[in-house]
Amino acid sequence: MNSTDSRKKVGFVGLGIMGRSMAGHILDGGHELHVYNRTKGKGAELVARGAVWHDSAGEVAAACDILVTIVGYPKDVEETYLGAGGIVERAKAGAVLIDMTTSSPTLAVEIAAKAAQKGVRTLDAPVSGGDVGAKAGKLSIMVGGDEAAFNVALPLLRLMGENIVLQGGPGAGQHTKMSNQIAIASTMIAVSESLAYAKASGLDAGRVLSSIGTGAASSFALNVLGPKMLADDYAPGFYVHHFIKDMSIAIAEAERMKLDLPGLALAKRLYETLASSGFGEEGTQAIYRLYEQHAGK
Amino acid sequence: MNSTDSRKKVGFVGLGIMGRSMAGHILDGGHELHVYNRTKGKGAELVARGAVWHDSAGEVAAACDILVTIVGYPKDVEETYLGAGGIVERAKAGAVLIDMTTSSPTLAVEIAAKAAQKGVRTLDAPVSGGDVGAKAGKLSIMVGGDEAAFNVALPLLRLMGENIVLQGGPGAGQHTKMSNQIAIASTMIAVSESLAYAKASGLDAGRVLSSIGTGAASSFALNVLGPKMLADDYAPGFYVHHFIKDMSIAIAEAERMKLDLPGLALAKRLYETLASSGFGEEGTQAIYRLYEQHAGK
Repeated sequence: MNSTDSRKKVGFVGLGIMGRSMAGHILDGGHELHVYNRTKGKGAELVARGAVWHDSAGEVAAACDILVTIVGYPKDVEETYLGAGGIVERAKAGAVLIDMTTSSPTLAVEIAAKAAQKGVRTLDAPVSGGDVGAKAGKLSIMVGGDEAAFNVALPLLRLMGENIVLQGGPGAGQHTKMSNQIAIASTMIAVSESLAYAKASGLDAGRVLSSIGTGAASSFALNVLGPKMLADDYAPGFYVHHFIKDMSIAIAEAERMKLDLPGLALAKRLYETLASSGFGEEGTQAIYRLYEQHAGK
Repeated sequence: MNSTDSRKKVGFVGLGIMGRSMAGHILDGGHELHVYNRTKGKGAELVARGAVWHDSAGEVAAACDILVTIVGYPKDVEETYLGAGGIVERAKAGAVLIDMTTSSPTLAVEIAAKAAQKGVRTLDAPVSGGDVGAKAGKLSIMVGGDEAAFNVALPLLRLMGENIVLQGGPGAGQHTKMSNQIAIASTMIAVSESLAYAKASGLDAGRVLSSIGTGAASSFALNVLGPKMLADDYAPGFYVHHFIKDMSIAIAEAERMKLDLPGLALAKRLYETLASSGFGEEGTQAIYRLYEQHAGK
């Protein structure tokens, strides 16, 4: 296949920090890029590099064979896809639509069903790896949808990520992302409590990390975010308020499945306490603030 | 220093699975080993290899320059060290006593003070790494006590472990081990809930691990114990009932420090539910059993 054959009309909707990096990789891959974002200014750099601006997500969909979205909340996904003049209404028959927002699995199933009625295929494909992974094109991408659509999307996904796994049918990508967030939630509590205990008992918590960071207690949270907690570095890699959104989705899905997840419920309550104290725009490691107060720091 | 100078009379009390491996390394190091264990049979192999049997911990202490203990519960440590005819009463002036049991930090401080009145130095030096680490001589050893005593003990500790850190004064080793156990506690909940959610939502949980095991959700618990949970492999690396003991010590210490650790409290309640269902002799990954039932497995 030569480069003319593989060049596609690709749409990209949602040009936040991650979206801009990801769309940039698609341009770098030689594709014709069509973009839309609620705040127009965020598309300026991509347009300067040759991307075509449209005035709505529906217009981008009407112009493209394959479309990527990464917007904020499930309600944004719902409006963008299912709203009047939205993506599903305007998409071309045969198109593949890829939502990379972390969103509701149930909504992903609904969008897939409505798109299928129009002969349009969808994938839910949320990511992990954050700003850094998006910039480096090294995201982990968790995909739900049918295998044929996955194979169509794969060359494009490879421009943005490295660990790309088809997890199952519609919604499976979102469910996998929820599993990821659930695994993070109580681990953040574990790390905060461990370090708060270390400090309260008079230990040098950094030295404690040198003892406990290599064995059965080790985790990304302990080894990467633990030192940030101890340095009072609460700059966001991943925002507290986005994490609360994700935990809310996971809890709603778990309730639907009649699955009791008390650790997740506790983590969500603690993060809500943190956000209500004004720290929603900090990174998730700021959960340590709740314990520092008690540790008499 | 030649081998005659460095050969010491070393006592070892507590010949459980870990203790036997650790004492064996001390024999391999060329030291004169004196041993005692409540159940005499567990010392037979060491005695056959040249260790000297004594009929009480106190007698071992009276015969040695340096003594290692690794017994079961804080009450065993208290009785062994502070009981009539026990280690502190019988130890030689100038001896160094090393308790490697995971035990109470407060008790470690008390033992250190009582030993000091007799001119005897103590170290609290609990370990992580389990049976496997003990056998391989690769334990992580977290030490509390004075630096001079630490330096006396270090060559001996190096026969048993690799990551050996003096964390502070008396009790600091135990506090560090508590920090380790606190970090594990909620992480085990995190992993169980993540995998239970994955299964309940119809995903292939092993494939989910391939997506989430390398990023922000990764942990020893997820990557090493997660696959055991999914394989219904609950063979003990670390016993549920020992973990409950450790969490009980940590909670008592946290209460003394007026530090609220809701994640740890939740984990302890869940593990107690597991133990009361008859699974106390299984490995800590058996906590997944509580969620499997709800996940309709």
